[in-house]
Amino acid sequence: MDPITLAVVGVGKIVRDQHLPAIAKNPDFNLICAASRHGKVEGIDNFTSIEAMLDAVPTLEAVSLCMPPQARYQAAVTALSAGKHVFLEKPPGATLSEVVDLKALAAEKGVTLFASWHSRYAPAVEAAKRFLAGTRIRTLKIEWKEDVRHWHPGQAWIWEAGGLGVFDPGINALSIVTHIMPKPLFVTKAVLEFPENRDAPIGAEINFANADGVEALGEFDWRQTGPQSWNITAETDAGHMLLSHGGSRLAIDGREEDHGPEAEYPSLYARFASLVRGKQSDVDLAPLRLVADSFMLGKRKVTEAFHD
Amino acid sequence: MDPITLAVVGVGKIVRDQHLPAIAKNPDFNLICAASRHGKVEGIDNFTSIEAMLDAVPTLEAVSLCMPPQARYQAAVTALSAGKHVFLEKPPGATLSEVVDLKALAAEKGVTLFASWHSRYAPAVEAAKRFLAGTRIRTLKIEWKEDVRHWHPGQAWIWEAGGLGVFDPGINALSIVTHIMPKPLFVTKAVLEFPENRDAPIGAEINFANADGVEALGEFDWRQTGPQSWNITAETDAGHMLLSHGGSRLAIDGREEDHGPEAEYPSLYARFASLVRGKQSDVDLAPLRLVADSFMLGKRKVTEAFHD
Repeated sequence: MDPITLAVVGVGKIVRDQHLPAIAKNPDFNLICAASRHGKVEGIDNFTSIEAMLDAVPTLEAVSLCMPPQARYQAAVTALSAGKHVFLEKPPGATLSEVVDLKALAAEKGVTLFASWHSRYAPAVEAAKRFLAGTRIRTLKIEWKEDVRHWHPGQAWIWEAGGLGVFDPGINALSIVTHIMPKPLFVTKAVLEFPENRDAPIGAEINFANADGVEALGEFDWRQTGPQSWNITAETDAGHMLLSHGGSRLAIDGREEDHGPEAEYPSLYARFASLVRGKQSDVDLAPLRLVADSFMLGKRKVTEAFHD
Repeated sequence: MDPITLAVVGVGKIVRDQHLPAIAKNPDFNLICAASRHGKVEGIDNFTSIEAMLDAVPTLEAVSLCMPPQARYQAAVTALSAGKHVFLEKPPGATLSEVVDLKALAAEKGVTLFASWHSRYAPAVEAAKRFLAGTRIRTLKIEWKEDVRHWHPGQAWIWEAGGLGVFDPGINALSIVTHIMPKPLFVTKAVLEFPENRDAPIGAEINFANADGVEALGEFDWRQTGPQSWNITAETDAGHMLLSHGGSRLAIDGREEDHGPEAEYPSLYARFASLVRGKQSDVDLAPLRLVADSFMLGKRKVTEAFHD
């Protein structure tokens, strides 16, 4: 089969670090151009807007939208309306309603829409899902604590309204949890900490429950210096589960098995190719819905100003 | 056909004002009991919990859940698990995720779940929908401004996290707009005003757009004294539309037709009976999704303390 002609839109850190290497290794895709207000990809045609690119390159079949979520909807409408398949970086939009709208538009146009959640493809996630399916869960804990100065240096958009703040990394945890839990969690209580000079939270403590009566606690913090924590732990009838390093490693009662090397973005592009070839879409809103619910249900605490 | 045996749960102001009169007039229902921590309904059996009521009255077929949204999920799980049909007052829950969960449970149990939106049954709403379907909309404006001291005296739960604040009435406007707009709106910008001593907003200004490029503005305010405003206006190619009085009256370029008397709750119970008889559910989350999106995308402004 001919490779799918692809463009990346919004050329920033995540495109350079993850998308370009993953696309380069995948024979199902042929990256032929890019559109970005500031960034460029060497060796292919570059445009400053998606509209200019779609006009100039009619052979283009698919686009990966990697700009900040606040600008993603308009680009997605433009691409879907032109009959292009669309890969959405996470989160798939700034609001739930706009993504519901995109789903309908993709169905109407008969093209693929893929709302990607890269952490679901971390090496040990499927093993954790299998483990939890075979036991009774007593409690679950999510600890997602990192140093925002190290991971998001100078990224102003994550602090703006709609940028999600600490839920920008936190939604990775939620994308894993919504995938591995046998019964879905919902938010029962939330406290969000907003720096007095910012429109997005720097920390959040979220209580969850599910229909089985499992209680879960999520601790999200962007002020963690020293060791970073991207852990999901569960106390179960079959022992203590620790899914650590953002889903890369799994230990049951301290015993760890090897689940292979990290390949999140290569897996995402394999999935996107399979969706396009199979004429299907995959738009799971559950992680973003939990974030929206946390904002709606959450108490707001104002905390000290944050400066990069 | 035998009437459906029904109970109301959470006996407060809305039950006395609306549910009891509507149920009394509907021959499809036979109200046989009630459960409430504090309130009572005269002339039928009263219980202090839904669990006690379900144990004592096995012939009960359906329940209307009218307690504050923060407590609705657990009662709904209890009722659905016992095989009862469930009518949810608006909003259907404190979070979107819990209602998604209830939908799945209702389907599994083969019973009806009805997320009611009473304002959709206001007299002039269908006429407004027909009008908008036949023209091009240029702009839309929602003005939902009322005096909280008059309409919600001493209702502490609406000011708590999860009580939605000014969106408790505002979601009525959103339930109408999501019903009458030919293409769905989504939130593009939001500013929420929180009194410094409260966990829910007292005012909100929301910008919306849709796939047709229509821009809409929503002004929600709980500090309106004097005349109250529950208006949706649209500038269209076919003239100026004013849907006023919470959906009761419609004027096109100032010309008003009579759309009959108010019958929102009687219409809701007619719909519930038809869903139960037809073994169907009706759970539209669009209004609550717009509220959650407003919280997620919204800038927070702290404003002066509010005292009842």
